Amino acid sequence: TRPAQMQTVTLIPGDGIGPEISAAVVKIFESAKAPIRWEERNVTAIKGPGGKWMIPPDAKESMDRSKIGLKGPLKTPIAAGHPSMNLLLRKTFDLYANVRPCVSIEGYKTPYTDVDLVTIRENTEGEYSGIEHVIVDGVVQSIKLITENASRRIAEYAFEYARNNQRSSVTAVHKANIMRMSDGLFLRKCREVAENYKDIKFTEMYLDTVCLNMVQDPTQFDVLVMPNLYGDILSDLCAGLIGGLGVTPSGNIGANGVAIFESVHGTAPDIAGLDLANPTALLLSAVMMLRHMGLHEYASRIQTACFDTIRDKKVLTKDLGGNSKCSEFTSEICHRVQDLA
Amino acid sequence: TRPAQMQTVTLIPGDGIGPEISAAVVKIFESAKAPIRWEERNVTAIKGPGGKWMIPPDAKESMDRSKIGLKGPLKTPIAAGHPSMNLLLRKTFDLYANVRPCVSIEGYKTPYTDVDLVTIRENTEGEYSGIEHVIVDGVVQSIKLITENASRRIAEYAFEYARNNQRSSVTAVHKANIMRMSDGLFLRKCREVAENYKDIKFTEMYLDTVCLNMVQDPTQFDVLVMPNLYGDILSDLCAGLIGGLGVTPSGNIGANGVAIFESVHGTAPDIAGLDLANPTALLLSAVMMLRHMGLHEYASRIQTACFDTIRDKKVLTKDLGGNSKCSEFTSEICHRVQDLA
Ligand SMILES: CC(C)[C@H](C(=O)O)[C@@H](O)C(=O)O
Ligand SMILES: CC(C)[C@H](C(=O)O)[C@@H](O)C(=O)O
Repeated sequence: TRPAQMQTVTLIPGDGIGPEISAAVVKIFESAKAPIRWEERNVTAIKGPGGKWMIPPDAKESMDRSKIGLKGPLKTPIAAGHPSMNLLLRKTFDLYANVRPCVSIEGYKTPYTDVDLVTIRENTEGEYSGIEHVIVDGVVQSIKLITENASRRIAEYAFEYARNNQRSSVTAVHKANIMRMSDGLFLRKCREVAENYKDIKFTEMYLDTVCLNMVQDPTQFDVLVMPNLYGDILSDLCAGLIGGLGVTPSGNIGANGVAIFESVHGTAPDIAGLDLANPTALLLSAVMMLRHMGLHEYASRIQTACFDTIRDKKVLTKDLGGNSKCSEFTSEICHRVQDLA
Repeated sequence: TRPAQMQTVTLIPGDGIGPEISAAVVKIFESAKAPIRWEERNVTAIKGPGGKWMIPPDAKESMDRSKIGLKGPLKTPIAAGHPSMNLLLRKTFDLYANVRPCVSIEGYKTPYTDVDLVTIRENTEGEYSGIEHVIVDGVVQSIKLITENASRRIAEYAFEYARNNQRSSVTAVHKANIMRMSDGLFLRKCREVAENYKDIKFTEMYLDTVCLNMVQDPTQFDVLVMPNLYGDILSDLCAGLIGGLGVTPSGNIGANGVAIFESVHGTAPDIAGLDLANPTALLLSAVMMLRHMGLHEYASRIQTACFDTIRDKKVLTKDLGGNSKCSEFTSEICHRVQDLA
């Protein structure tokens, strides 16, 4: 077989432990001989010509060209008015779907086993519209904006995802009993789209009921699709079920193949630079990225090496219950990746 | 000691299994010789003079007089425009605080032990304002309304609750990083009120972070206070941790002592009338009610009898893992209540 063609990925190492865990991923990808050329960029927002916050032109240009980004944790500078970097990235590249597979990891004990679900969050509107007003002194309103287009788009994404990933059901999560018009519109679009996917079972459930059922038996869920805030909540809740943000991958998907994959944990400034960080979440996000790029064989090999390392419990970082360094954990995965070749 | 003075409570048996579990509670209260006179009322909404939905005058009158209600599950009729009965009751009596203690029950196995927390939910505004608009075709907005007064009131309730119930901390749950003005206002009021309760530790946490931490280690939480929708979600999530809505009590508190205590599970029409229902949630809500009325000794005795029955696992309804009837479970609690006298 001739070598796969090299593809460029914009690497955004991020802050705190970001550079270490990014280096770990790069190393593991090298061991796997993954056909990726990394183009490193800093995305910390700058003030553009009109005084508007924007990501630096060379980062934007790289992403526009490569279409694919891998991103470590970013700290949002506390300069007045500085936007959340995560929100700015989602907006800049219209990354409308946040996708988080939550799968129980063998050997990493939590109160739950056999979790295997995916939350798909509408990433551009809803409660994150940013529109707020003071009506009179002491009375404030925030606007939740739901549109037909964004609702249809995310519903279609969810069903396509289900179909392409051998998933059998999609659950729309809502509070249309309370927000009859907005969640009602969201739900209606989900129902309409469901009509075109007769091979996928469609159900609807109130957000509160989902939360309750989720902590009682998460194995009943498969693909879940929901408005922005509900996704923010449920994706973190589900990450908790399988061991937290340190082991949960995430992808932000836009139109025409554009996507940024990211670890969603913090920058952990207390351990930054100490070779103690756990690169798993970023690595599994990079695995999602490989799948997104059609590089399935590399994805499977790296994922297997990572999960085998965790299951064997011999070389683990502290947060995973071991006492190995980030570099040792990384080397272990590299060896296994090579053995699997 | 001379017999306690009888106090009137408005009993709203509700629909489905409501009448059975209400009868169970009445029976257990009789065994305990609790000084309660029940005044039974039906609250199913009717259309008032101006075409507005309202609860029947005799139910309203009873509640206005007794100030205290105990309510089973209600089904909301599907007549066009019929309001949610729960929302209508909260509104009619300005029940601004929803209080749900979630405490692990010995002998009833869930993935968690030692849960002991209380969610306090703002019950009157926020995402439940009911204000929605179609902006243009396919674009809908729902308004989340946060006021200084309601925020201060619920914060004060939470800190008073903490103080009166020997609780050591209050956590404000918010997304003020996203809804800067509305959740910002809520949070600011919590901070201000916290200043007056130096004996209670105050912390703030993002809703998503709470959800994540909650499923990983709920024992870190004590009293949580939050806007309406977040409370809807978190209270159900927490109920899930201790065994679900069948064992979780709830109270809706208004000004001047007015309160309605209720089981928050459904009407379970499939088992209604079959003597199979589990009265625990309604009974524990009635226990909350007794405490609210200052009848602590009766409360403790009934609660102990209920928990002992569950712990001993001999006489349990089906959903609790046994095969006894509702009436048998009830009798068992009655006997124990008498033995404890
Ligand atoms: C950092 C914050 C703006 C963000 C959100 O609320 O969406 C985060 O919680 C997430 O889920 O990516
Ligand atoms: C029935 C429904 C209107 C209600 C709510 O959303 O508040 C319920 O979920 C609750 O928590 O009491």
